[in-house]
Amino acid sequence: MGGDFAPRNVIAGAVAALDEVSHRINLIFVGREAAIRAQLNESAASRLPVEVIDAPEVIEMHDSAMAGLKGKKNSSISVGIALQKDGRADAFVSAGHSGAVMSVSALTLGRIAGISRPTIGAFFPSEQGVCLLLDAGANVDCRPQHLYEFAVMGSIYAHEMFGISNPAVGLLNIGEEDSKGNDVTKEAFQLLRNSKLNFIGNVEGRDILLGRAQVVVCDGFVGNVLLKFGESVPAFFKNRLKQITATSFAGKFMAALMRSTLRKAFKSMDYEEYGGVPVLGVNGVAIIGHGKSTPKAIKSMIFRAEEMVRKNIHQHIQEALSTGQC
Amino acid sequence: MGGDFAPRNVIAGAVAALDEVSHRINLIFVGREAAIRAQLNESAASRLPVEVIDAPEVIEMHDSAMAGLKGKKNSSISVGIALQKDGRADAFVSAGHSGAVMSVSALTLGRIAGISRPTIGAFFPSEQGVCLLLDAGANVDCRPQHLYEFAVMGSIYAHEMFGISNPAVGLLNIGEEDSKGNDVTKEAFQLLRNSKLNFIGNVEGRDILLGRAQVVVCDGFVGNVLLKFGESVPAFFKNRLKQITATSFAGKFMAALMRSTLRKAFKSMDYEEYGGVPVLGVNGVAIIGHGKSTPKAIKSMIFRAEEMVRKNIHQHIQEALSTGQC
Repeated sequence: MGGDFAPRNVIAGAVAALDEVSHRINLIFVGREAAIRAQLNESAASRLPVEVIDAPEVIEMHDSAMAGLKGKKNSSISVGIALQKDGRADAFVSAGHSGAVMSVSALTLGRIAGISRPTIGAFFPSEQGVCLLLDAGANVDCRPQHLYEFAVMGSIYAHEMFGISNPAVGLLNIGEEDSKGNDVTKEAFQLLRNSKLNFIGNVEGRDILLGRAQVVVCDGFVGNVLLKFGESVPAFFKNRLKQITATSFAGKFMAALMRSTLRKAFKSMDYEEYGGVPVLGVNGVAIIGHGKSTPKAIKSMIFRAEEMVRKNIHQHIQEALSTGQC
Repeated sequence: MGGDFAPRNVIAGAVAALDEVSHRINLIFVGREAAIRAQLNESAASRLPVEVIDAPEVIEMHDSAMAGLKGKKNSSISVGIALQKDGRADAFVSAGHSGAVMSVSALTLGRIAGISRPTIGAFFPSEQGVCLLLDAGANVDCRPQHLYEFAVMGSIYAHEMFGISNPAVGLLNIGEEDSKGNDVTKEAFQLLRNSKLNFIGNVEGRDILLGRAQVVVCDGFVGNVLLKFGESVPAFFKNRLKQITATSFAGKFMAALMRSTLRKAFKSMDYEEYGGVPVLGVNGVAIIGHGKSTPKAIKSMIFRAEEMVRKNIHQHIQEALSTGQC
């Protein structure tokens, strides 16, 4: 039921995912059953082997992040995440209320031993591939220990999911020198330097797209502002180009010629390509999608969730922490 | 002596500024006299009516922000800024150490009465024109009162320099709802709401380029990360486009066709266009340029400094605070 175009886009994306890899996944739709069934019929997908679990309540965007645990225990988010605890599902995917997915995941599935703050990671493009930035908004105020934990989780994710051995970890800061930043970053710098992670030191805002680090840690306030700023960049340039080329016939002609090239260039900064952002640090798998998730984004989220389950990300995190590998 | 290409770019830009508006400005070069004279000769600009004041020391990028006040009192930054105090200059422009320009300005010129923290503002493009973001890195940790003061200074700057009456002020946050953010933003929200400023509430990272506010306030950590991220965007897309078009002859042909259009589109995010960032809240005028400032950027900085003097920005700020206009 989550996101601006639910259940339509969610079901369309899920059906597309099933069409591609029905041998690898079983889908359970959780939400208002009548609405889901109606949409499935409309998608001519009623014949697909999917399960529907009724969850009559919906957490709205103006609800608090705790709504799924207090007032609306029968929401699609609460019921859907609980399926993992009951052993009926391996992963949860939603384009709904991020804060609610985060808090219900943390409190229903529980935190991984050694993790004090579960986190949300976001993907940025970079000249060297992809950059995973954590925290992307789950933890507004962070202590140094939290930043260290984000670095551990990010490293494991980048290693397992992107196949990067010994990912470079950077601490987002306002200068490269060790002494830069506020009290939290200064102390986090020391924790990271003394860790077994491949810590490359402080990185600045410009280093994200340059790809100096594959994992960048910061508090959720900074991360969320950057994530939303980054998401707004492609549309801004598209509009600028439109204004510039719209002034002449030659311009319009060129705009038509450029279209597919630009689409490819901007694609790297398009949230749709990444599908969603993973919740890390909980005993299970949850992926949060953009409120405007398209069917394609939903499909990517489902594939990513399946991969996280297959690669046992949360178990790798737990092992790394319990064996002192990082 | 500041920046990566001093004194060459600084002098080239200054000479270009003089060529255009020599009737409005008098220039004083402050730095190592021999190096400046040599460069002036090389620029065939020795005939121009400029003054040179010898300042043998140079604050290097690895020096602390206090170097201009403690160890290197004969640096170009220290000597140059002091000229305003002595009534020999109206403004100071530098592509050197930002922190040093900031601290020497604050301590030599003094803070405007009612301002507890001078600030640096940065310019972002937006779909509605330009957006002034403060603080851009001078104040890493901020209290609510500081954010309010940034909003006052930003509003006055936007009004006087951009001619925007009653500029819309936004508080950078991770959600639009009043209750979002950390303790500092929550309290700043109340201060701003009770002010006479045109406060539009919380804005998110995406709202900067959308142009929802002409003035956006945040702490210097967030502002600096965003500024540097934003500055890195044009080069990232240029490289992406190059990679995409380099794969075929048709692609290369198209790249050549697109070049000027893209240059126009990216220009809006190019630091060169804005010339530099103003120090606000001190009893004087100081503008800080990018370390890589081109002659064109230096020229813009000089023009902007002249405009700030002509429009009495710091006096407007002082009046607004003393008369309780905001």
